[in-house]
This record gives sequence, C-alpha cells and structure tokens, in this order.
Amino acid sequence: MAARMRILGVDPGSHATGWGVVQVTPALRLVASGVIRPGHELNLPDRLVLIHAELTAVIAAHAPQVMAVEDLFNARNARSSLILGHARGAILLAGAQAGLAVSEYPPGTVKQALTGNGQAGKEQVRFMVMRLLQLVDAPPLDESDALAVALAHQGRQRFAAALRAGGGR
Amino acid sequence: MAARMRILGVDPGSHATGWGVVQVTPALRLVASGVIRPGHELNLPDRLVLIHAELTAVIAAHAPQVMAVEDLFNARNARSSLILGHARGAILLAGAQAGLAVSEYPPGTVKQALTGNGQAGKEQVRFMVMRLLQLVDAPPLDESDALAVALAHQGRQRFAAALRAGGGR
Repeated sequence: MAARMRILGVDPGSHATGWGVVQVTPALRLVASGVIRPGHELNLPDRLVLIHAELTAVIAAHAPQVMAVEDLFNARNARSSLILGHARGAILLAGAQAGLAVSEYPPGTVKQALTGNGQAGKEQVRFMVMRLLQLVDAPPLDESDALAVALAHQGRQRFAAALRAGGGR
Repeated sequence: MAARMRILGVDPGSHATGWGVVQVTPALRLVASGVIRPGHELNLPDRLVLIHAELTAVIAAHAPQVMAVEDLFNARNARSSLILGHARGAILLAGAQAGLAVSEYPPGTVKQALTGNGQAGKEQVRFMVMRLLQLVDAPPLDESDALAVALAHQGRQRFAAALRAGGGR
C-alpha cells in the first residue's frame, strides 16, 4: 500500500453531491469533506459543468489515488434514474480523467460494511463514520454518506490485504 | 442568425453515440458525421472519458454554435436509464464546457419534425435526412438519427424566426 493512501468517496445526487476524502495510511483520518450544490436556477448541462469542475478541484487539492462512488441501483423510476445518471457520469468522468481508480458500491454494501446491517439508516451510518474517523462534530448526512463509501472501500481493501497476507486480521 | 450557423446533433447511447454537424446558413448542408463506439472492453468511467474526449474534438474541429441532443425518455427500465444517463452526462458536459447552447428533444418530437409522424421508423427518418441534406449515400442509422436531431432543431429555429418576422414562411 502507498505511503500516503487517500480515498475520495462520493454520494451522487442531482441536486446535492456529497464528497469526502479519508487518509488510510499511516492512520485512518478525515482529510476534507463537503457538498456540491448546483443551484436550482442552473439548467442540467450547467449543473454538470459545476459538479465536474468542483470535483476536479477537490481531486487536485487533496490528491486521492482512488475514487469510490455510491451505485444508485434503486432509483424510483426510469426518469429519476436518467437524471441521476447524468450527475454520476460527470463524477465518474472527473475521476477517470484525473487517473483515479474508480470503484462503485451499492448502498446496501456500504451500510453492511459500516454497520454490519445492509438496511441501516443514514443516522446509524453517520454514527459509525464519526466513530471510525473519531469526529467530534456530526457532518451533514450528504457528507457522512460520502465518507461511508470511502470507508467501505477501505474496509474491503483492508480485508483483501489480510487475505493476501495469509489469513488473520 | 449568424453568417455561418452550425448545429451539432447527438444521439446518445451507452455503446454507440451518433453525431452529425449540419450547416444551416447560408445553405443547409452536411458538414460531418460519425459514430463514437467505446469498446466493450472499457469500463464505464473509461467509456465516458472516450465519449467526452471525442465529442470535445468534434466541437473543436467543426465549431458548431449549438448542440441538440436526443432526450431518451422511454428507456426500458431504471437500470438502463441510469447507464444511458451517464453517457448523456458526458455529452451535455462536453457541449456546455465548450460554450454551446444545449437543447434537448424527445424522440417523438424529432420524428414529427422530420417526417410529420411522431411514430415514424428509423428508416423513414433517414430517408428525410438524406432528402433534406441531399445525400446520395445512406449514412448508418446512428448517424442519421443524430442528424435528425440537428435538423429538428433547425426546423424549430426556422419556424420561430418566421413567427418573429410576422407570419408567413
């Protein structure tokens, strides 16, 4: 694993996209997090430009090696899926253009990895995010959801490394 | 209307994205068209990078002022809508980043504008595209669909200009 391994987690939404960068080594800690909120007055193409530009700036500022994005399998209908897909397209594009390895995780997998329960609520997920990153103040739910995706990726990598090392954790 | 008005039409797909540039003034003619086909061996983020890069290159090469994109309202299900949304996100982003005005048209509106029948088949649409642009050789359907979106936009602009001019066409 790299000396300074950082993961960018992203929770995409058409009106609010949470992001969070966690550093994995030498110790697990929060680097930065935020929410991208393109104004409702913008049309869709301009919202995408803003999401792409802000995420590109986040990557440049905090230099993660990996992007982990929530995979929104269960959108309510085809129309909302289509709109959400546009935002995810701009997000995945920003990551791939910056040379990051991009992984996608369904919400249930993220919840399971953080709390041991694939049906956990957002508050419970936030509680575990705060616990793992030793946060004192509760972040907004859009940010804790993004940090949860980054931590789910970290958990999986840690488990895979333990398996490679021959078993025990 | 600008001395040299060009419209870029785009028909998005997750595996094949047709594009076509038509020049509107001084006379209606085909400038260029093609199909972007990211290989199936690429993962989704890399497909998006390719679509975005190729479309950005098309815009730089042919200098359209406007982008008209087919609006895929009737995707079969939420999952296919989501995937298609990613491709459309990369496409709209490329247009907006290049400063193009971006318009979206549902398939039925495009068919209606080209053939007078909102239920027309792709071959009938292609026939009218060839007729309007005076093409001798039939383009692939992905390209004729993209050119049809550009021509639908042109038809609407032409109609609006006629209205502004005080009536008759």
